[in-house]
Amino acid sequence: MATHEKLNLTMLCDFYELTMGNGYFQKGYKDRICYFDVFFRQCPDGGGFAIAAGLEQIIDYIRNLHFSREDIQYLRERKLFSEEFLQYLADFHFTGDIWAVPEGTPIFPKEPILTVRAPAIEAQLIETFLLLSVNHQSLIATKANRVVRAAEGRTVLEFGSRRAQGADAAILGARAAYIGGCDGTACTISDQLYGVYAGGTMAHAWVQMFDSEYEAFKTYCEIYPTNATLLVDTYNTLHSGVPNAIRAFNEVLKPRGIKKCGIRLDSGDMAYLTQQARKMLDEAGWTECQISVSNSLDEYIIQDILRQGAKIDVFGVGERLITARSEPVFGGVYKLAAVEREDGTIEPKIKISENVGKITNPHFKKLYRFYGNDTGKAIADYLCVYDETVDDSKNLTIFDPEATWKTKDVYNFTAKELQVPIFRGGELVYQMPSLQEIRAYCMEQVGALWDEVKRFDNPHTYYVDLSQKLWDIKYDLLKQNK
Amino acid sequence: MATHEKLNLTMLCDFYELTMGNGYFQKGYKDRICYFDVFFRQCPDGGGFAIAAGLEQIIDYIRNLHFSREDIQYLRERKLFSEEFLQYLADFHFTGDIWAVPEGTPIFPKEPILTVRAPAIEAQLIETFLLLSVNHQSLIATKANRVVRAAEGRTVLEFGSRRAQGADAAILGARAAYIGGCDGTACTISDQLYGVYAGGTMAHAWVQMFDSEYEAFKTYCEIYPTNATLLVDTYNTLHSGVPNAIRAFNEVLKPRGIKKCGIRLDSGDMAYLTQQARKMLDEAGWTECQISVSNSLDEYIIQDILRQGAKIDVFGVGERLITARSEPVFGGVYKLAAVEREDGTIEPKIKISENVGKITNPHFKKLYRFYGNDTGKAIADYLCVYDETVDDSKNLTIFDPEATWKTKDVYNFTAKELQVPIFRGGELVYQMPSLQEIRAYCMEQVGALWDEVKRFDNPHTYYVDLSQKLWDIKYDLLKQNK
Repeated sequence: MATHEKLNLTMLCDFYELTMGNGYFQKGYKDRICYFDVFFRQCPDGGGFAIAAGLEQIIDYIRNLHFSREDIQYLRERKLFSEEFLQYLADFHFTGDIWAVPEGTPIFPKEPILTVRAPAIEAQLIETFLLLSVNHQSLIATKANRVVRAAEGRTVLEFGSRRAQGADAAILGARAAYIGGCDGTACTISDQLYGVYAGGTMAHAWVQMFDSEYEAFKTYCEIYPTNATLLVDTYNTLHSGVPNAIRAFNEVLKPRGIKKCGIRLDSGDMAYLTQQARKMLDEAGWTECQISVSNSLDEYIIQDILRQGAKIDVFGVGERLITARSEPVFGGVYKLAAVEREDGTIEPKIKISENVGKITNPHFKKLYRFYGNDTGKAIADYLCVYDETVDDSKNLTIFDPEATWKTKDVYNFTAKELQVPIFRGGELVYQMPSLQEIRAYCMEQVGALWDEVKRFDNPHTYYVDLSQKLWDIKYDLLKQNK
Repeated sequence: MATHEKLNLTMLCDFYELTMGNGYFQKGYKDRICYFDVFFRQCPDGGGFAIAAGLEQIIDYIRNLHFSREDIQYLRERKLFSEEFLQYLADFHFTGDIWAVPEGTPIFPKEPILTVRAPAIEAQLIETFLLLSVNHQSLIATKANRVVRAAEGRTVLEFGSRRAQGADAAILGARAAYIGGCDGTACTISDQLYGVYAGGTMAHAWVQMFDSEYEAFKTYCEIYPTNATLLVDTYNTLHSGVPNAIRAFNEVLKPRGIKKCGIRLDSGDMAYLTQQARKMLDEAGWTECQISVSNSLDEYIIQDILRQGAKIDVFGVGERLITARSEPVFGGVYKLAAVEREDGTIEPKIKISENVGKITNPHFKKLYRFYGNDTGKAIADYLCVYDETVDDSKNLTIFDPEATWKTKDVYNFTAKELQVPIFRGGELVYQMPSLQEIRAYCMEQVGALWDEVKRFDNPHTYYVDLSQKLWDIKYDLLKQNK
């Protein structure tokens, strides 16, 4: 059960998808088979890669795609659409094919994350939702992965619901953050719906509700002896919060033999305060007490305070993760790559631009990732035409499509196709992995990237190369269009 | 019908709201009446004010607040909550009071946008959704208002669905953008659900689907003679797009006597290209042809290209509006302001902080806005204790709460209470205005601000002053807590 499974989101489309649809219908193009690619042009935050996410919601959306009677009536009242087209929409469902890279896959600019093959109207209509889902969740999964890597093995929890850009952003943001490597969330419904473990203990209001901080802590420990993480910064972290927490632990937990407990800091200098708090806790014998912090964190602050010796076990990361504050847009686009002629041949299409970086890779394509057999590491991605096959038992010379004189010989490698079939003729043919499996797959695949690609700033540019055949087709199309 | 009306969002809460709720229940605090304020600390983008939005969705949420059997079962399985508390949740609904400033109101830091008076568990549980809704929609309405002001009366359309942070961000983002002053959206469902006018004509794929750009344009004009806005940058704006558009207009529209038409540019230098395109259109007699542009726009770029003489009638603003890219977080918080004793007296509460700016305004309060009777302009906002009344027939001396020696005499003014009752004893007592009314109210109220407050950078700081009584209470609480 996801937010949008309850709401028919067919009408969450850009209006031009409907005017174009009606146009294709009128022009007799409605059954013309088109190929569209979803891809992005730049990694957020200057990073070296992104994490694909959002496919599960696309699957839900596609399976539920239909126009209700109210939808048709709304469109009729716009007085732009032919009655025949509206009749067609009344029976509308998705009949095409979709291939996609699995969620959790590290992805790189200009490679197709998702490819649609469908009649023109269908392919056009789903543009907005596909982009929205991929863009939102890949954005958050990518950011989360950065934050998690900065935490170097410490627990990272997603705490941002209240600053999310709407309910879906909170709920699915927690899901995407989990894919990217977070260990849990504060968002209860994301646990209930998706199994992202939700946790949390108290806000400042709890402490303020009692006559003293000590009484608030003691009461909490009595009610939740095995889940007592006390928020220690309501009055004064070191002079009041930590001593009161220790006193409550001593009086309530110690007699019961409980050693697991925690404190949380939500303000102040994290490097200094956590080191002092750690000392105080250790001296009082609470060496297993975990220290959580949660104040406007992101990957840069986490790196900094760890470098300064902060003693932190758990990071609660809020607004800067759930909105990807430093770069809140994932720029995935949806571009026509090919059209099928009536005889079934596939005619490649290209979108040219004054800006060379915006020129698309034409045609119906295959996307491979090459892994070195000796290292297990990803060497390069490789785009070729749909009817080509890579034989990884032989050496292969690949070249940089933007600097064709730069070549690289690839040998002793395994070529893996990254896109897998999701829909065939409108039928779902993909078995969704569990969220836990997606998260584990993401961790494993990020592990297969060289450290150079994983630097936060100025990472090494990973190769996404074109086959000679694909490059020739692209070059010919560019010349034709000039 | 809103997204979340279909989904019960009661479980869209931070988990600590439930652990605290269970704690209050166990401790016998469940009926203790609390007052919480929603307020924010800083205007986004260094602006001088923000626009309140999100109330309609809060009303829907509150009215639908309940725990389903599945929700209770999920909570039971977490093994943290007492069975009595779970029974209590099974009958849970909101019984408290809510006051709020109407949507579309210009708001300022540290004043209560929304105030909740309710039993502790209820007041605590609704924290996340209230913040999420206010934070998201106020963020977008505020950004939209900046963009609309930059456009100086030209049409501004919201075009960002595909880059929105989830479905709600697209749908409700378009709603909030409309409140802030946008004229419409590309998002079809926002029109259907909220009456935000949706429009759009073609993407590059339409042009690519035909053998020539001219054929694509001509076909479009034939199908939509009264709604023909042609996208002219697929190949080359000035050498191909605009000439082909003029040819299509001449051949299809002219014979029908149609003068209304448009072109859209989605790439390239907008200042230069629109001036050239305007000349070409005018010389061809298409003086009523509107020029739309839509390429990574925001308030700064719009100001710049208008200053450079760009000839633009319509701005389509996408990712930078729908995500509020330059500052994607609206920092609304929810803080305990008072607790009622058993005898009914209201005990003010304060949240102190090392950071003076983070200290809250305690107590159950009233929020006034003072308007000059001669100018109609807003002079200052004024916070006082709930049992105080401002008599605007007399002069009043107000003072800056952060620099109490700075005083100002206010005379010949009208004092208007900004918060209005929304819920009383759990019952909705507010008649929601239409979205059109909210938008008009926003425009009127922004018009009541001095230009100095509306500058994009370094605006004049608008006064939000405290009554002497409120200031004394705050000062006493600060001294007590030290």
